[in-house]
Amino acid sequence: MVGEFMKRDDFDTWSIAELEAVEAALDTWVPVDAPAGLGEAMRYAVLDGGKRLRPLLVLAAAKAVHGSREAALRAACAVELIHAYSLVHDDLPCMDNDVLRRGKPTVHVQFGVAQAMLAGDAMQALAFEVLTPSAEAVAPALQATLCGLLARAAGGAGMAGGQAIDLASIGLPLDEQGLSDMHRRKTGALLQASVLMGAACGATTPTAWQALSRYGEAIGLAFQVVDDILDVTQASETLGKTAGKDLDNNKPTYVSVLGLEPARRRADELRRAARAALAASGLPDVQSLHVLADRVVDREN
Amino acid sequence: MVGEFMKRDDFDTWSIAELEAVEAALDTWVPVDAPAGLGEAMRYAVLDGGKRLRPLLVLAAAKAVHGSREAALRAACAVELIHAYSLVHDDLPCMDNDVLRRGKPTVHVQFGVAQAMLAGDAMQALAFEVLTPSAEAVAPALQATLCGLLARAAGGAGMAGGQAIDLASIGLPLDEQGLSDMHRRKTGALLQASVLMGAACGATTPTAWQALSRYGEAIGLAFQVVDDILDVTQASETLGKTAGKDLDNNKPTYVSVLGLEPARRRADELRRAARAALAASGLPDVQSLHVLADRVVDREN
Repeated sequence: MVGEFMKRDDFDTWSIAELEAVEAALDTWVPVDAPAGLGEAMRYAVLDGGKRLRPLLVLAAAKAVHGSREAALRAACAVELIHAYSLVHDDLPCMDNDVLRRGKPTVHVQFGVAQAMLAGDAMQALAFEVLTPSAEAVAPALQATLCGLLARAAGGAGMAGGQAIDLASIGLPLDEQGLSDMHRRKTGALLQASVLMGAACGATTPTAWQALSRYGEAIGLAFQVVDDILDVTQASETLGKTAGKDLDNNKPTYVSVLGLEPARRRADELRRAARAALAASGLPDVQSLHVLADRVVDREN
Repeated sequence: MVGEFMKRDDFDTWSIAELEAVEAALDTWVPVDAPAGLGEAMRYAVLDGGKRLRPLLVLAAAKAVHGSREAALRAACAVELIHAYSLVHDDLPCMDNDVLRRGKPTVHVQFGVAQAMLAGDAMQALAFEVLTPSAEAVAPALQATLCGLLARAAGGAGMAGGQAIDLASIGLPLDEQGLSDMHRRKTGALLQASVLMGAACGATTPTAWQALSRYGEAIGLAFQVVDDILDVTQASETLGKTAGKDLDNNKPTYVSVLGLEPARRRADELRRAARAALAASGLPDVQSLHVLADRVVDREN
């Protein structure tokens, strides 16, 4: 069975089981007992919500390299914690001032602005707590590798840096290269890190590592292109967040820069680049990564 | 030469050299090139300011165990980055809404609220970037240990949790135990982690590790008791931040709970506990830690 012919049913069976494992792990690792309502806010922010694309990318990449299960599950939860914290902070009044997320009131609407900021801060720390269990659970050298990949994807050269560009670019003209640079950091870095953290859980050749890195880069960018398309083509109810917001905020998007049809073509090019990278990886078990690339491009929310 | 008789001159020579090393390392590791002004905000928040107590604790503990120099310097900068990020977020309008810090406008006054929040977020990530260099620079198992200690001190059970209690306790009566629990997390956890991260850079016996842990706990609490004393006894110019703020905000403090003189006696008890722990550690080279305990209790800002 090669990737292109994997039955969707096989992927669905795999992903349903994996999503259950991720939910159970997050339920265990995101503490109820953080004091003064902080744990409650953290759990509200990360449990029972989201597509869990990043955890699935981690677990699919780990499957492709026959990686350590415990390490991969921890990496999956850690990237989701970073993603979820970034949404909490991004929704705050000083940033996007959004009140709806995944169909629910945002964390600061529910718990107050200060608690939301602290919950995000604690979730970032928790990601690194989850990555550093006992040496028996995950080999210390792998813990260090995972922490390093995640920190660099989350920090100033990655996600936080992309958000700073986003903040500075409202109402300013950005060309496609400027837009790509922003999204490569803001969304792409963590999606690519998800793939590489999964890959780090097993043994890879340099060829496979580079190929998975290219795969992660392509789907990272595709994700954002599709996000921008959905922002103008879908209703808020389908998205579970406020649609048309980027346009209203006068933010540059792939649609505003390229136009709708060219943006769709760009998403398809990136899908092909992702497929080509998987084919070049030399890894036999990349079916789930293959389907995930399709899911990124073909999703409707 | 034992700790109690260490000449202050020796300590000053040591600490001046170490502080220079920390400043140079932070200058190298806090990037100018984080995009859209983010790097500038990060550097403003962490360079050229602060007493650098936490880095000195890391380096003094590392000296006591003859720890790896590269690891200790990275750990020193990482704890300072976490400390500095917490100040940036703590000063925001949704938290303490403070405009003055270390005698300068706070980060959000200088760069805007959104950029300040992002700079804090990126500084937390950067702390873990600094702790995960190449395997040649710091042994991977030590990287993992340092990341684990720092994440737990910064997160929901540590600093962020303490801030959540702080937030929830404004105007509420807290007894000394409640106050201690808050500060053990809010300030104490990171001070104690500083000592233990330094200790992790070398070889320790379980006895020495436990003793340094008790030392760290005692000075962590002493630090906050003295902070509360200084808040009512010192002018804003001496503190470099707004004095009398806790009282104005109706926040419980050691002074409001215990009274001024009992708070001073409590600080002295904690100094003695710190000294006793050093004596029990069995480590010969604890002079710097000894003087640092005095500095924590006797400081005037």
